[in-house]
Amino acid sequence: MLDELAHIGRDPATHGYVRDAWSPADLELREWFGQEAARRGLDLHDDRNGNLWAWWGDPDREPGVVTGSHLDSVRQGGAFDGPLGIVSAFAALDRLRERGFAPARPIGVACFTDEEGARFGVPCMGSRLLTGVLDPGRAIGLRDDAGDTLADVLRRAGRKPSALGRDDETLSRVGVFVELHVEQGRGLVETGAPVGVASAIWPHGRWRFDFHGEANHAGTTRLEDRDDPMLAYARAVLEAREAAGRHGIVATFGKVRVSPNNANAVPGLVSAWLDARGAAEKDVRALVEELSRGQRVSEESWTPVVDFDVPLRDRLAAVVGEEGPAPVLPTGAGHDAGILASAGVAAAMLFVRNPTGVSHSPSEHAEPDDCAKGVEALADALEELAR
Amino acid sequence: MLDELAHIGRDPATHGYVRDAWSPADLELREWFGQEAARRGLDLHDDRNGNLWAWWGDPDREPGVVTGSHLDSVRQGGAFDGPLGIVSAFAALDRLRERGFAPARPIGVACFTDEEGARFGVPCMGSRLLTGVLDPGRAIGLRDDAGDTLADVLRRAGRKPSALGRDDETLSRVGVFVELHVEQGRGLVETGAPVGVASAIWPHGRWRFDFHGEANHAGTTRLEDRDDPMLAYARAVLEAREAAGRHGIVATFGKVRVSPNNANAVPGLVSAWLDARGAAEKDVRALVEELSRGQRVSEESWTPVVDFDVPLRDRLAAVVGEEGPAPVLPTGAGHDAGILASAGVAAAMLFVRNPTGVSHSPSEHAEPDDCAKGVEALADALEELAR
Repeated sequence: MLDELAHIGRDPATHGYVRDAWSPADLELREWFGQEAARRGLDLHDDRNGNLWAWWGDPDREPGVVTGSHLDSVRQGGAFDGPLGIVSAFAALDRLRERGFAPARPIGVACFTDEEGARFGVPCMGSRLLTGVLDPGRAIGLRDDAGDTLADVLRRAGRKPSALGRDDETLSRVGVFVELHVEQGRGLVETGAPVGVASAIWPHGRWRFDFHGEANHAGTTRLEDRDDPMLAYARAVLEAREAAGRHGIVATFGKVRVSPNNANAVPGLVSAWLDARGAAEKDVRALVEELSRGQRVSEESWTPVVDFDVPLRDRLAAVVGEEGPAPVLPTGAGHDAGILASAGVAAAMLFVRNPTGVSHSPSEHAEPDDCAKGVEALADALEELAR
Repeated sequence: MLDELAHIGRDPATHGYVRDAWSPADLELREWFGQEAARRGLDLHDDRNGNLWAWWGDPDREPGVVTGSHLDSVRQGGAFDGPLGIVSAFAALDRLRERGFAPARPIGVACFTDEEGARFGVPCMGSRLLTGVLDPGRAIGLRDDAGDTLADVLRRAGRKPSALGRDDETLSRVGVFVELHVEQGRGLVETGAPVGVASAIWPHGRWRFDFHGEANHAGTTRLEDRDDPMLAYARAVLEAREAAGRHGIVATFGKVRVSPNNANAVPGLVSAWLDARGAAEKDVRALVEELSRGQRVSEESWTPVVDFDVPLRDRLAAVVGEEGPAPVLPTGAGHDAGILASAGVAAAMLFVRNPTGVSHSPSEHAEPDDCAKGVEALADALEELAR
């Protein structure tokens, strides 16, 4: 199934994916999700926030066992981050039917919208709106790089911006959620196992730094007359790296916007986004505090630590392990499963081995054998939970 | 006349101008130029490279005295850089007619295309093509940010890309060229004079640095596993500033392009443009050499020092000075007058005082009184040269 999606939103020059939420590529992927649901006789539900749900059985009679992930991508991302979880969900459901399994509870496949936040800057938009941790009034006012608000974009897609918001009816159908995802580090490579189970998601956040200066001519303005914000930005980049090492966390300036961004002009404004994560919240907070001195900084997102349900994770580790329990490991990446867990939903994650650990890049990869083992493991997990 | 142009290509949010070559704003400005020429009964000539010429008298009988500048802008630029020279040219011609002056030689008003290089990265494109210092084959292959080549853009504007190139016929009509321009530093403020004359244009160049690394997930990639090109870029920014101070020149990283430019991804590539200029070529070259170590660097443009014709500049300084000769001063900014001078055309520049020295910015300014004095000075200069 991943092959069927390989062409959608792929940049022919880099082979990286660009699948912004509500872009033509994303709409095509949503269409594909509906077709896969129909092909299996599943009931499709497109909720108020644009998340898609395909149900085997009626979740209004009893909350179901849900699996799934997302189809959108970071810009210039890989083929696995997101889609592997959805493709594996449909494939696991096929495996259950091949096995002749008769679920005692409904089983659902979910596709969360705008998990990456590539377009509007807020990751896990679909699950944050669903659970009410993101204010819909703030969400619809977010702007993309073209200056369009989410409200504009939703209207163009034929949707009602006013429908956004906490959706207890949809949420009440989720008895338990298991998200399968390609691993984004080398944890499984080091243990030698193809599939692992998540213990926790590190606390993480995103901050926008606005370095203000004075735009001026690059040829005629003496050094001593300059107020060049690029210098402050450069110092912040190096300081972030140094401080991350000192605090034992990770910190990244991966996105920059320069105004006017002319080769022959001293910039007037450099805006840059800091991503910082670590095992302990206090270390992340300390780094941001150090870097913020004298700068205009706004917190764009903050997600506290998520510790996944311990009995559930141990139960799944026992079921999906090949010889003894599967490895249990934390991750620095945010996921919809984490948002649901924070909202009180029993949630867990399965990771599929990533031979290089590379993610958010066209060279992200997982071996076909490991993907197949991921499907078997997910089918085992669903059978365990829905028996 | 500047007021008539005030709305064209103005960003309502910043009040900065965006007037890329061949954009709708630029086409509107070219249209305006034709109307101003027609209103004065001047003969309009649109040359092979898209430069516009409005002639009073026949330059095919005898080479003329030409004045003018450009109408395009850097992005988020001011109202004066370029347009002041064209508006003042028409106004000076009006003053000559009011004075009843009968020129002994033809007088022309020129508008050079794409002086700033905001769209395709090569400044003074129109005058470089005209004089043959820019290869037309290279020019038509240059791409803008949307990925369109100059050839695509010219075709869309109804022009023939194959027409570009050295144009001796047009060039032979230019006996002498005088460009009036808003000053882009505080040289005249310090002398107290409203109008000055250029002595030289510093040697200057533009280099593209490609810092390569490995794109990866910002949350899951350990610091020690990263190859983050943003760090190399940050070090280059600080090193450029330090080296510029040491060599007594100016150096600026004002334009950056990050790939993929996601807040949650370590970049795979940071491309940045260095602009460096100084009184002595050897200092500029030394700085670029120091910064280039171990980096992929390509020279996008290089303009050697331009020393304007000394007898011409002294003659103009004597004519336009209020009490004694006008101040004579160098500039770090490139201009079409410099390209023509390098090609052997007798050329000179007049500067109009800039109270803050700020340019390439929406806050660029010149006082109305100083602009009026610029027009009088230019009329005096034209009268001196065309008598």
